[in-house]
Amino acid sequence: MAPQLDPFFKKVDELKQPFIERLREAVAIQSVSAQAESRPEVVKMGLWIAEQLKTLGAEVELRELGKEPGREHLDLPPVVLARYGSDPKKRTVLVYGHYDVQPAQKEDGWATEPFDLTVDEQGRMFGRGSTDDKGPVLGWINIIDAHKQAGVEFPVNLLCCFEGMEEFGSLGLEEFVKAEGPKYFKDADAVCISDNYWLGTEKPCLTYGLRGCNYYSITVSGPGQDLHSGVFGGTAHEPMTDLVILLSKLVDCQGNILIPGIKELIAPVTDDEQSLYDAITYSMDDFHTSLGSNTSIMPTKETTLMRRWRFPSLSVHGVEGAYSAPGCKTVIPAKVIGKFSIRTVPNMGSEDVTRLVTEFVNAEAAKLQTKNTIKVELMHDGKWWVASPKHWNFAAASKAVKQVFGVDPDMTREGGSIPITLTFEEATGKNVLLLPMGSSTDMPHSINEKLDTRNYIEGTKLLGAYLHYVAEEPMNDA
Amino acid sequence: MAPQLDPFFKKVDELKQPFIERLREAVAIQSVSAQAESRPEVVKMGLWIAEQLKTLGAEVELRELGKEPGREHLDLPPVVLARYGSDPKKRTVLVYGHYDVQPAQKEDGWATEPFDLTVDEQGRMFGRGSTDDKGPVLGWINIIDAHKQAGVEFPVNLLCCFEGMEEFGSLGLEEFVKAEGPKYFKDADAVCISDNYWLGTEKPCLTYGLRGCNYYSITVSGPGQDLHSGVFGGTAHEPMTDLVILLSKLVDCQGNILIPGIKELIAPVTDDEQSLYDAITYSMDDFHTSLGSNTSIMPTKETTLMRRWRFPSLSVHGVEGAYSAPGCKTVIPAKVIGKFSIRTVPNMGSEDVTRLVTEFVNAEAAKLQTKNTIKVELMHDGKWWVASPKHWNFAAASKAVKQVFGVDPDMTREGGSIPITLTFEEATGKNVLLLPMGSSTDMPHSINEKLDTRNYIEGTKLLGAYLHYVAEEPMNDA
Repeated sequence: MAPQLDPFFKKVDELKQPFIERLREAVAIQSVSAQAESRPEVVKMGLWIAEQLKTLGAEVELRELGKEPGREHLDLPPVVLARYGSDPKKRTVLVYGHYDVQPAQKEDGWATEPFDLTVDEQGRMFGRGSTDDKGPVLGWINIIDAHKQAGVEFPVNLLCCFEGMEEFGSLGLEEFVKAEGPKYFKDADAVCISDNYWLGTEKPCLTYGLRGCNYYSITVSGPGQDLHSGVFGGTAHEPMTDLVILLSKLVDCQGNILIPGIKELIAPVTDDEQSLYDAITYSMDDFHTSLGSNTSIMPTKETTLMRRWRFPSLSVHGVEGAYSAPGCKTVIPAKVIGKFSIRTVPNMGSEDVTRLVTEFVNAEAAKLQTKNTIKVELMHDGKWWVASPKHWNFAAASKAVKQVFGVDPDMTREGGSIPITLTFEEATGKNVLLLPMGSSTDMPHSINEKLDTRNYIEGTKLLGAYLHYVAEEPMNDA
Repeated sequence: MAPQLDPFFKKVDELKQPFIERLREAVAIQSVSAQAESRPEVVKMGLWIAEQLKTLGAEVELRELGKEPGREHLDLPPVVLARYGSDPKKRTVLVYGHYDVQPAQKEDGWATEPFDLTVDEQGRMFGRGSTDDKGPVLGWINIIDAHKQAGVEFPVNLLCCFEGMEEFGSLGLEEFVKAEGPKYFKDADAVCISDNYWLGTEKPCLTYGLRGCNYYSITVSGPGQDLHSGVFGGTAHEPMTDLVILLSKLVDCQGNILIPGIKELIAPVTDDEQSLYDAITYSMDDFHTSLGSNTSIMPTKETTLMRRWRFPSLSVHGVEGAYSAPGCKTVIPAKVIGKFSIRTVPNMGSEDVTRLVTEFVNAEAAKLQTKNTIKVELMHDGKWWVASPKHWNFAAASKAVKQVFGVDPDMTREGGSIPITLTFEEATGKNVLLLPMGSSTDMPHSINEKLDTRNYIEGTKLLGAYLHYVAEEPMNDA
């Protein structure tokens, strides 16, 4: 039986203006986690969130994470933990979000003051953090508010985990979440994170997978110092010559990874999986628009999305130590560090990938017959994540999308990584759903970040509806 | 008959201290041509040189070169032209030098104040410009001084051309020298430039050749803006992938240029030429010391020096537009510019080289099957130069070395370029000799630049003796 959501939806519509004002108040707090001087504002933002939750009746704890590694004069901002409801007969949903934001200055090119929420005639709400991630975090608060004001019983027990360092590497959070898995989060039946974006602008999506990322460096060194190419050109092995040859062996111009063994690690595509791609509302025109050119490799929507989400890729990012300024300099760099990364997918184990990369680069280096020293190293890795899109957690969200937006959601993955997703999955052992609020045009991290009023208000309804469907969805742990 | 040089030599030895004081006075004038705020000091230095020459009886002209291109609020410093003697029965020698210097600050790591000439116990005279090029310029002034004080007749008519912008691209000088070829310089029978260095520390050299340099860029562009490798990796042609493949095709790790047709442009090595290399005082140990490692390509002194002086080389300098900072960034750069240059030798015409480079890069680019845009361009070129080391100008210098130092000079070329050399050859139609004063350990352009007292004093004798031998050398224009 479909839950009775009309009183809740009606209340959300009624509260549209107060909800926008709530977002305006949040955006005005300049909680930039990267800048040391903004740390008091980040803390202020955490306290503001805590106060909002307390006022609505949640039990709130502020958890300190200690000093910031590398900037020990700074305290990390607190993690805001909250519990709303503790009825053992209800399911418990754990939600994650972050209350810090990227840096922003009017001079960067913003059309409006970045910390002064500005709503235009089309209902676009411009402001830093509007979509990433204050809007979605307030979504969870708004639904408690709307339920209370509508007099509708809240359908689940809600656990909140809101951090203040996401835009600066989520310092300290991984350990914290792992430690709280069997403690604060032990009742959770499912996890929901609203911190990514729709594939387009019209249709919501549910995200069930993320690629991982293994980042490597190849360091080539030889001469004791940088050399003048007039004086030394032709007489000494040049590190840059060796490096460009090695980098040229990794991937071809069609994006095929040339490192032997990588392809064999990829999980085969199933028919079920394949069918998800056909249904997705997306076109090559959409892709070319986001690319800013027509330099696509694949011919169709389906193959392009599978390349982005479902298959590994290898990108060469640049070279440290070589001449990188405009103009001419006749230098032979003494030590150059090539950087590349591989986006990983199921079932690529990080250690396997690193072993294959290392063996291949070393074998190619040996062929060069250079006297330079060549070293390949893993700089960091983050594992891929994939959830079952047939789990009841996804089924509930899918029904909520249908009810609020009248369409079936796109079932998407992301090419990039959101490492905390996997951490929550591992810490709780439960299904994690990514349920975004913002659209593909929101420009997070960029100038003129915005959230459309429709996405904020209908998105608030969606988060609420999702909890109602969670409450009554049959528990298949597919 | 060998010229009678003893009275002149004796006088130089007597004047050692005043000559060092003269250098101290010159070094104290901070004539840094690159820095706008130092321009008055550069001009002051030009006037100081002019005054020294006038006092010794030379006719001096200060020639203005107009405004500095790109910094039109600055006047270029004057070219100091001087004539000492105008006896039609004597040969006329044109000498070039520069009175400006590289920037220097104590904080850069100098052990002493850079503009305060500091002589240590080993006679090393530390100071900016000591060896590059104030010491050699004062050498020419010192020999006039010593001849006058010794009462020895000056053996030739001397024409001087001293500029003040050499360390900032010799702005305006090329046109000036070309214009004065048939005018102020029309009497010149030979040209001598003292602005390079010995191959080692013990034995002077005469330099008869320089490599040229053709500097190229390969620009690869595609996406409308830099991309996130998580979102776009695998779906779009990546400019950096294309670029590293193209750069990897240019040269192998043994320094062999792989562009078809380049090898065929190189003039064959003659037996005469080959024999010059065997005689040179140099060892692979010397080479490894200067390289700061043992990453040499060639096994012997002769082959190493020929690779440096006699054969072209290709160096990849770096990439503009890619990620070049330390650490990790998962960017797909939208536009990358690879920089490389080819050191050229006889008989490689610049246009021929550029045609071969362009054809090759375009052909390789076509094989990539990329939708990105690829463009190869010549950024600048400078022609190689080679003089006949058997010309009487070189024979005179060789005898002077033998007389002053008791050894035959090394006959050297340079791997780098000194573009004004070719300009003087073309403007006067006369043989140009490079006759260095400083040694390989002088560190021009670096911190702790120095000139050894021995090189300064014996070098002054050498410049004087050279003019005496010029006066009586049979005129073979070999």
